[in-house]
Amino acid sequence: MSSALDVIGIDALRPLLDRKRVLGAVREALIWQAEGRVQSPLPGQLLFDAPYGDCHIKFGHVRGQPTFAIKVATGFYDNPRRGLPVNHGLILVLDAETGAPWVLLNDEGWLTAWRTAAATALAAAALAPPTLHTVGIVGTGLQARLALEWLPETLGGQEFMVWGRSAEQAAWLAAEARRRGQTARAATEIDELLAACQLVVTATPSRAPLFADAQVRPGTHFVGLGADSPGKQELPPALFARAAHILTDDHAQCLDHGDFGNAVRAGYVQADADHMLGALLAGHLTLARGQDDLTIVDLTGLAAEDIAIAGLFADLLSQA
Amino acid sequence: MSSALDVIGIDALRPLLDRKRVLGAVREALIWQAEGRVQSPLPGQLLFDAPYGDCHIKFGHVRGQPTFAIKVATGFYDNPRRGLPVNHGLILVLDAETGAPWVLLNDEGWLTAWRTAAATALAAAALAPPTLHTVGIVGTGLQARLALEWLPETLGGQEFMVWGRSAEQAAWLAAEARRRGQTARAATEIDELLAACQLVVTATPSRAPLFADAQVRPGTHFVGLGADSPGKQELPPALFARAAHILTDDHAQCLDHGDFGNAVRAGYVQADADHMLGALLAGHLTLARGQDDLTIVDLTGLAAEDIAIAGLFADLLSQA
Repeated sequence: MSSALDVIGIDALRPLLDRKRVLGAVREALIWQAEGRVQSPLPGQLLFDAPYGDCHIKFGHVRGQPTFAIKVATGFYDNPRRGLPVNHGLILVLDAETGAPWVLLNDEGWLTAWRTAAATALAAAALAPPTLHTVGIVGTGLQARLALEWLPETLGGQEFMVWGRSAEQAAWLAAEARRRGQTARAATEIDELLAACQLVVTATPSRAPLFADAQVRPGTHFVGLGADSPGKQELPPALFARAAHILTDDHAQCLDHGDFGNAVRAGYVQADADHMLGALLAGHLTLARGQDDLTIVDLTGLAAEDIAIAGLFADLLSQA
Repeated sequence: MSSALDVIGIDALRPLLDRKRVLGAVREALIWQAEGRVQSPLPGQLLFDAPYGDCHIKFGHVRGQPTFAIKVATGFYDNPRRGLPVNHGLILVLDAETGAPWVLLNDEGWLTAWRTAAATALAAAALAPPTLHTVGIVGTGLQARLALEWLPETLGGQEFMVWGRSAEQAAWLAAEARRRGQTARAATEIDELLAACQLVVTATPSRAPLFADAQVRPGTHFVGLGADSPGKQELPPALFARAAHILTDDHAQCLDHGDFGNAVRAGYVQADADHMLGALLAGHLTLARGQDDLTIVDLTGLAAEDIAIAGLFADLLSQA
């Protein structure tokens, strides 16, 4: 192995971003996961007290793929006081034939953000209600913002409604979407959003349900992507008991630390009540959806998605 | 975080190697471990079938240290057929105040090799017999070779005897040591080595005991560093029942996947029969050694050692 391991910064990655290709790669990753082709042990984790922070290390290999990947993501929550971003991230891509490090994508967390946005867009379309006028976005952080940008790739030209704890942030997000030519406005109450939207994406760091089961209308399709580690929770557990279909990006992960697991532990659904999103995407599974069916996709994020997007960008770089 | 993460290759690291400083850093790491100051979850592992290989990911943080580290080490055993080395390795050093990646030491596994050699030298000296004429090295791979180079740092000018499955390799290793001015020769049988040596270092990838308990003389001090993952074994389990003192680099790790654990599972010693090497080095513990006492140090390798040596080299680089 030469010591000249290539390090590619975010400035070199951003121009290569092609949403259609990322959607294709993430779609494939979801299918790999459903087909059991992914070796992805439980992520490693380091916790820091002072300053408060954490480091997550995900790693995995997809049988038959020429590369594998190790992703490091840190969150240090006092960083903004120092004028630094909370998150840092990078993905190391290695050769699955020789074990040699190939390229280090010092993406500052953007590849994770993009693959998550792609999974969100795929999950939204997978069980989208037949009549879809308005899409609700709950949350105003980076993933909420990316959801607004990426959802039209799979859904088309719906209207958007945004709600968050900060009315100011929600208004800003809606205004940004309008500047892009989208139809979007902020909701003043979450009830307004739940009443108007047939599809609701939750993208928050919440540790408690964002609304009550009783606030939810029949026929709504939910995509939850915020509950991605133990202790996090966005959807009311009782909602799962009403769902006609529950999809997970990974059964075991969502059971362990997604909102699906929260609902199972609260006794609202059986631990085998879900199907894997990738099985639906691959056509291994067909799910009928009635007009009044409530449906939920629980996303926790997959090492396979990291592998897929890192492989895609590593390929694009080697062609560039 | 800037995308300009520094990548330092082995050619830039090698000139900074200072054995005394590495011994100091690894000594400190062993003490950190014994004092419970290290956060080092179980390493991550990926296994590959075709080609046959593995990837180990170690990570940890020492309370109070300004950096933390993630180490990736791969072994792909068909590589030599392609003219490539079996092992690749790198250590990512991150800032424990901000989570920002700081420097990537693309050391190709050398930092691990050096910290292991340093731990070996410290373990050899820690319970060295009062009369030490001849040191036996069992194995002829990289760590055996480094043991020959590093042991004089802590022991002084002993004679060496080398034995390995390949007589040719053993003869070559002894000749190389003589070229350095050491007194060294190859043993034709392992019995010859066990009869002549008061200190025996085993550094092999063996999966079964290298010799029988009955072949071992009283008064010998053993340092075993080859049994560092499940399934590996170098020392006969019965040897542990004869030991006056058993030291481990980490109690839990050696119990899980060192030769100490093999002996406990075989029923020869209790699971609490060991002391931590770092406790002895720190002076928290005093162990008397009689002329005929048989003693064992079981080394499995510590994330703390990786952190310590990576921190040392990162410091040296920032001063250079």
